[in-house]
Amino acid sequence: MRGGTVYGTGLGPGDPELMSVRADRLVRRTRHIAYFRKAGRAGRARGIVNGMLREDVVEFAMEYPVTTEIPLSDPRYNDILSAFYGDCVAHLKALVAAGEDVVVLCEGDPFFYGSFMHLYTRLRGEVPVQVVPAITGMSAAWTATGEPITWGDDVLSVLMATLPEDELAARMADADALVVMKIGRNMPRVRAALEKAGKLDRAWLVECASMDGQAVMKLTDADERVSPYFSIVMVHGQGRRP
Amino acid sequence: MRGGTVYGTGLGPGDPELMSVRADRLVRRTRHIAYFRKAGRAGRARGIVNGMLREDVVEFAMEYPVTTEIPLSDPRYNDILSAFYGDCVAHLKALVAAGEDVVVLCEGDPFFYGSFMHLYTRLRGEVPVQVVPAITGMSAAWTATGEPITWGDDVLSVLMATLPEDELAARMADADALVVMKIGRNMPRVRAALEKAGKLDRAWLVECASMDGQAVMKLTDADERVSPYFSIVMVHGQGRRP
Repeated sequence: MRGGTVYGTGLGPGDPELMSVRADRLVRRTRHIAYFRKAGRAGRARGIVNGMLREDVVEFAMEYPVTTEIPLSDPRYNDILSAFYGDCVAHLKALVAAGEDVVVLCEGDPFFYGSFMHLYTRLRGEVPVQVVPAITGMSAAWTATGEPITWGDDVLSVLMATLPEDELAARMADADALVVMKIGRNMPRVRAALEKAGKLDRAWLVECASMDGQAVMKLTDADERVSPYFSIVMVHGQGRRP
Repeated sequence: MRGGTVYGTGLGPGDPELMSVRADRLVRRTRHIAYFRKAGRAGRARGIVNGMLREDVVEFAMEYPVTTEIPLSDPRYNDILSAFYGDCVAHLKALVAAGEDVVVLCEGDPFFYGSFMHLYTRLRGEVPVQVVPAITGMSAAWTATGEPITWGDDVLSVLMATLPEDELAARMADADALVVMKIGRNMPRVRAALEKAGKLDRAWLVECASMDGQAVMKLTDADERVSPYFSIVMVHGQGRRP
């Protein structure tokens, strides 16, 4: 009996038509499908493939343990997550040992700030793993603005909104084009940093790029708006040349 | 008679299986296909869709004018290119006015350093244009290295190898994860800048990501190697947290 393979399968930004041909085929043909989700939710990655799975699909929902009451700095936080990832990996390895392929559904591109990496580092060397790259959420977001993000020799910086405000501001000032991810309740800091960097007027906000509920607006028109965590703020490059 | 639409269609990094489901359908179903190519070449974008086009396809090869003897700084350089783009746009507009859809084949993601932007800025407002985002070459490249590019709060910088060496070195030192594009004969400058930034030992070189001839190696193992222009050099992030 041949062993199976774990496919870390990027699904892209959310529109099923923006999945790659390879991902589409893997999702439709593979019986064992795994995905992360928050406890009590349907799961964002699982939602993208609604209606695409085999009738005899076996789903493995990997539900994150509830850690909201434990600060990130508490060592228990990492212990709980490590044990969780360990349990997920044990289940995936058992399936592979039984000869089954498993598709792990990943929002966006698995190796670009993806949660699959935590499984990947524990699986590789132990079982066959293949990673399928995908369209990033930021690609869908800049496409939605109708403006190219980078031209010529523009420098693009990708920043997480969780960084300290002064660091955000310095990096925003320094880049030609910029993308800020993980917005949500970090928005006031992102706004303040853009203002300091002199780029607030040129910033765009994109929510739910490529999905139902997509919203695209100048950030200055979004006062008081509460945006989801997966929203993206961006400033387009203007065609830098040496 | 309804008018047509121009579809700026990202094809992704080169493997046809990494095209999106939407791009795959547009390429297979649309009669009018346009693409840039160098004079006397088959065209890189055209090569990706070999065997996928309709039998009655009408191809419009947009051949770049030969400008190798004119320096970039010479005003004639821009004049020649502007006239070329103007001719391409006139042809596309005539097709659309005749009710035809046209798929413009774009390597990578059209709005990420893509050549389609030069048509897009001339077409929009004049005829219907839709842009289909795609998997970037850099996503295929970091997937090929088998290592995630960014973790946690890593800052990613995307740099063009055409920048001056000191600027490259400063930006390389400053980023957690970095991608350098447009390598080719700029490689000596990229190496020197990585050395100054203290990151040469951690750099990878990826040629022809996802395509026949894909090569992945530590940059320190690539001495004297002559890499294509579309190669990518990268340094992976290591999981920065605030």
